[in-house]
Amino acid sequence: MHEALTSLQKRNNQQLEHWLGQCPHSGQPLIEAMHYGLLLGGKRARPFLVYITGQMLGCQLDELDAPACAVECIHAYSLIHDDLPAMDNDELRRGQPTCHIKFDESTAILTGDALQTLAFTILANGHLSAQAEPNRIKMIKELAEASGANGMCLGQALDLAAEGRHISLEELETIHRNKTGALLKCAVRLGALSAGTIGEAVLPQLDKYANAIGLAFQVQDDILDITSDTKTLGKPQGSDQALEKSTYPALLGLDGAVNKAHTLLKEALQALETIPYNTRLLEEFARYVIERKN
Amino acid sequence: MHEALTSLQKRNNQQLEHWLGQCPHSGQPLIEAMHYGLLLGGKRARPFLVYITGQMLGCQLDELDAPACAVECIHAYSLIHDDLPAMDNDELRRGQPTCHIKFDESTAILTGDALQTLAFTILANGHLSAQAEPNRIKMIKELAEASGANGMCLGQALDLAAEGRHISLEELETIHRNKTGALLKCAVRLGALSAGTIGEAVLPQLDKYANAIGLAFQVQDDILDITSDTKTLGKPQGSDQALEKSTYPALLGLDGAVNKAHTLLKEALQALETIPYNTRLLEEFARYVIERKN
Repeated sequence: MHEALTSLQKRNNQQLEHWLGQCPHSGQPLIEAMHYGLLLGGKRARPFLVYITGQMLGCQLDELDAPACAVECIHAYSLIHDDLPAMDNDELRRGQPTCHIKFDESTAILTGDALQTLAFTILANGHLSAQAEPNRIKMIKELAEASGANGMCLGQALDLAAEGRHISLEELETIHRNKTGALLKCAVRLGALSAGTIGEAVLPQLDKYANAIGLAFQVQDDILDITSDTKTLGKPQGSDQALEKSTYPALLGLDGAVNKAHTLLKEALQALETIPYNTRLLEEFARYVIERKN
Repeated sequence: MHEALTSLQKRNNQQLEHWLGQCPHSGQPLIEAMHYGLLLGGKRARPFLVYITGQMLGCQLDELDAPACAVECIHAYSLIHDDLPAMDNDELRRGQPTCHIKFDESTAILTGDALQTLAFTILANGHLSAQAEPNRIKMIKELAEASGANGMCLGQALDLAAEGRHISLEELETIHRNKTGALLKCAVRLGALSAGTIGEAVLPQLDKYANAIGLAFQVQDDILDITSDTKTLGKPQGSDQALEKSTYPALLGLDGAVNKAHTLLKEALQALETIPYNTRLLEEFARYVIERKN
């Protein structure tokens, strides 16, 4: 899987660069900050999910570039805004200064705004397969639904509201199903919708898979915040504790959190068993989610 | 025109309320702040332009609600972000505390983000006329193009970069064509596209009209910042000078700015002359733009 991940990361970066190249005002700090926020590192987990889901269902890579880029633009914008002083106040991301440190706060706000818009520009304009063309509006709806007040934005708002306060495991899951889970699930769904009716037929199983790995992703993030170090993470280790955030290890203990991650992996793999296509990369990605070190 | 404006303001508010009602987490501060930012006052100039352009070309009002709401969501989000401490640092808007004063800064950032997403949700999901349905993707492209790094976001970035520095009249026009003009033009275009091919046929003339009133809108804003008072404006009078912003009166003198506004009005009216429909409301709106007191 790691070869596929590296190769698709590279492909996705080139595609993102292509879209940024369409902005006529390339000398502007705004455009430079969009480059910086989009292209400086990152695992490209969401584009990867778009690509491997779509490929599994018979799509060509060039039929998946647009949804892969769109979902990464949403992710990149959310990181830039989440890092702002009024939000998580992070100065380090992917081992580099965050956008508002490298540029300034107003530029970081506008950069996030413009990257969100770019996501919709890409999904409205980009090449799709012939069988996906009738799904284009549906794909735009999916992306908006996952990103806004019913998804990612809500999750971040709930997360901020929970700082410094004890919350239940159920509340924690609601936060993360929205904050992280919604967009990861959207990535899988966009990959499936890119294959037209073939993909739509397996959406329920893919949703189960995506729900499980979405939550596992966050559980592992919480575990790494305790067990890893700043250099490996590329962001300050221990920042959850510093912000008094409720985390899976805080609620379940470290062993409990590790068990939770393995239970979720099992759920994800079970969901794949019923999908009549070659699910190898989706399986490997699920394992990677809870085995990764950063 | 004022009756039409009042009645369409009311209609637009009800429609916006309807869309906000679709958010299942209505008790959340995020959703409350979205209500606050969207529904507390505002002239609804952009929705009005959608409605009167579309009606002129034969659309029913309910076929224009979705684009009218979408464009207002973009406008509302931009005001919330522009008011932030790192941007224009405004505490008063429409005679009320700005979003980050009423709630807090992180909520205001997320509220703007979620309102931008809502704009695309509405345009992707909302009812359109049968003849506009084939234009839905085109309308989403228009909205994204007008809002992002080639339009409104760029304009705000250029505006911030110009603070405290002398700029030419040409630079000032570039700022405002992007910051204010792009979305006003988009409103007119969305109204036209709602009428299908009939609307597409008059897009060039409507663009000329919209370009002129878009710039006139800003010229008049600059004039009012000097000649009006805080109570009438609903925001602090003299704030442009306080931020050392280049304005039309600063570059042309007050008389020069007033002349400029009248020249733009003339351009707008000339563009309408070649449109073979009843352009009365568009004419009256153009006059209103440079005669308004707030």
